[in-house]
Amino acid sequence: MRSLGIDPGTHSMGVGAIDTDGSAMIFVNADVLRANRTAPQAQRLHRLYTLLVEYIAKIAPDEIAIEEPFVGRNVKSALSVGRAQAVAMIAAAASDIPVQTYAPREVKLAATGFGNSSKSQVQEMVLLALQASTQPMSQDASDALAVSFCHINARRAQALTQEART
Amino acid sequence: MRSLGIDPGTHSMGVGAIDTDGSAMIFVNADVLRANRTAPQAQRLHRLYTLLVEYIAKIAPDEIAIEEPFVGRNVKSALSVGRAQAVAMIAAAASDIPVQTYAPREVKLAATGFGNSSKSQVQEMVLLALQASTQPMSQDASDALAVSFCHINARRAQALTQEART
Repeated sequence: MRSLGIDPGTHSMGVGAIDTDGSAMIFVNADVLRANRTAPQAQRLHRLYTLLVEYIAKIAPDEIAIEEPFVGRNVKSALSVGRAQAVAMIAAAASDIPVQTYAPREVKLAATGFGNSSKSQVQEMVLLALQASTQPMSQDASDALAVSFCHINARRAQALTQEART
Repeated sequence: MRSLGIDPGTHSMGVGAIDTDGSAMIFVNADVLRANRTAPQAQRLHRLYTLLVEYIAKIAPDEIAIEEPFVGRNVKSALSVGRAQAVAMIAAAASDIPVQTYAPREVKLAATGFGNSSKSQVQEMVLLALQASTQPMSQDASDALAVSFCHINARRAQALTQEART
């Protein structure tokens, strides 16, 4: 099963894909898709949408996991997060691939066993687990890998629960 | 000039188009695009995106105006508004048509001369101005017409200001 994690933004999107056979995890690819920072917002969102649809077609994931950032009480950042998420959701649905969303706490917990870990701890642990620590990688790209990692762990936990029941 | 107004939502989108020659306004079309309410959010957003791209191709507007609803301090509704707006923005950019956003207060002010008017007052005034009061129309559709109306008025005001300067 190939899982694609997305760390959505309105200027750039982190993307990271992992393969798993149910036990081992194998690093596939991680990247950052970027729109022109000075373009009007509608054009930026459309550009990210187009890049994401192309990336999904190239990577061909079975499932997509999207991070749902914590926005606290900040209404302006909630508007922005909503826009970025919609881009990722529409691209996933356009590619006919099922989507799950995860809170940052869930992503951190899956990667490090600790929900309040720092971004660099998450990066370090995920790259270590994937034996991909020699890959040059930006924070956005490794964040996206962590979301994919979290999704695979959630799927495993579901499978174990079902096994235990039957 | 043909202006398309959009009242964005994550379940349905009001759309309303008006033609103008610079003075008269002529009603073109108003409708509500709907996604299946029980579908997962990503699929709903993608469905609305597809319907909107089709509608834009059919109506062929020169400009698009999107309402930016007031979200106050409600972070959850801001996330939802952001998602709905992104659908409209990506569809407009995919069709290569310039986009403006307007606050509800601006839309109400343009339609009724009063920023705090009720939704039914806005509907009544816009349909009256367009001599379209015999058209059967839902609130979402007439809201979208009001956004288009507001955009045409804003464009007129800009033209008058430029004329006065030259």
